[in-house]
Amino acid sequence: MTDEVKVIEIKKSIFEENEKDADALRAELKQKGVFLLNLMSSPGSGKTTTLIRTIGLLKDRLRMAVMEADIDSDVDARKIKEATGIPSVQLHTGGMCHLDAEMTRQGLDHVALDGLDLVILENVGNLVCPAEFDTGSVKNAMILSVPEGHDKPLKYPLMFSICDVVVINKMDVLPYFDFDLEKCREYVHMRNPKAQVIPICAKTGEGVELFARWLEDEVKQWKQQ
Amino acid sequence: MTDEVKVIEIKKSIFEENEKDADALRAELKQKGVFLLNLMSSPGSGKTTTLIRTIGLLKDRLRMAVMEADIDSDVDARKIKEATGIPSVQLHTGGMCHLDAEMTRQGLDHVALDGLDLVILENVGNLVCPAEFDTGSVKNAMILSVPEGHDKPLKYPLMFSICDVVVINKMDVLPYFDFDLEKCREYVHMRNPKAQVIPICAKTGEGVELFARWLEDEVKQWKQQ
Repeated sequence: MTDEVKVIEIKKSIFEENEKDADALRAELKQKGVFLLNLMSSPGSGKTTTLIRTIGLLKDRLRMAVMEADIDSDVDARKIKEATGIPSVQLHTGGMCHLDAEMTRQGLDHVALDGLDLVILENVGNLVCPAEFDTGSVKNAMILSVPEGHDKPLKYPLMFSICDVVVINKMDVLPYFDFDLEKCREYVHMRNPKAQVIPICAKTGEGVELFARWLEDEVKQWKQQ
Repeated sequence: MTDEVKVIEIKKSIFEENEKDADALRAELKQKGVFLLNLMSSPGSGKTTTLIRTIGLLKDRLRMAVMEADIDSDVDARKIKEATGIPSVQLHTGGMCHLDAEMTRQGLDHVALDGLDLVILENVGNLVCPAEFDTGSVKNAMILSVPEGHDKPLKYPLMFSICDVVVINKMDVLPYFDFDLEKCREYVHMRNPKAQVIPICAKTGEGVELFARWLEDEVKQWKQQ
């Protein structure tokens, strides 16, 4: 296996109405039976490591592909491909701080969707802008890592209000940080009472099966709808 | 002392030419003898704690004020005021992901500039958008924390290329993370060969005097120009 990955240069959307476009993309993907998950977080909170663990648990149960959005570099798509063997493309946003539905579609054009159950989009590392743009995903998930602090739902309200799942990563370093998991849960639920909070450690894999199970259940339920 | 802080609702800029506006703001501040530092980082990398430590070291040597930009909440401005006693205003960006020169000016309108040497602007927690907008600052500084990983200069090139100083925070947790300080230094210098890299631990205060000294020297040199 070569370590080369497809790198797609994403162009700025020319469409003004992102919500309409996102709904159209969602409908198309529904027809194809492909579930799109939009995964967001701050820079360095462990999106790629969490994905590698999650894919490891699910790749024999779901047919998957990954799109890695980044301003530059193809480090993440390469890592995913090497570690999991599943198809992975890198989306270069050329400095753009988020992906919208049209940009997501540009990426999906380079993914062989036939027969896939799930595409995971790793959005740009940013707690602000990605929250404002519907990518056409069925569900939104985010990762907050312990070192970032439990007060983040107070400071980035929109991000926490649009996510169905908040994964709390780097639980192994909890003893070294002033991170209050119960307070965090409370703040997350202030923003979105229905959000699930799942503590994990992507480095060791602890807890990742809960996130994987949530994702598998969501994909299966959605397929039956 | 009351713990109330001024909260300013920042409006979107109507000016198209941010660079011109930033240069004009810089010239005005130069006339008043007020040095503006623009401090950036990811969410949760320790901007506020680093500021409190830095102000503690400098407040008898420089007359200072702080502007804290946040999407919501006044947690940070309140913390700074309580911990240091220096004037601190909170800028609410109403969901906006960065500050430009005009938005910075809106904040400065609420700061008593007469007799001040230094205003520190704590920008929105975001490694992408704030890098694209000149705030009118004399210098840009950023904080990268150990848990975020040493690869961030590869992934957020513009941010690292525009910063004069990169503070590496949370050095106390280095043993628990795969963070290579030498690699980080190398990647920072790929983006900006002149950037200073200053490892600190804001929690204990270790190393902060190096950042404070850099800042004091910059302010003094600039005043003599």
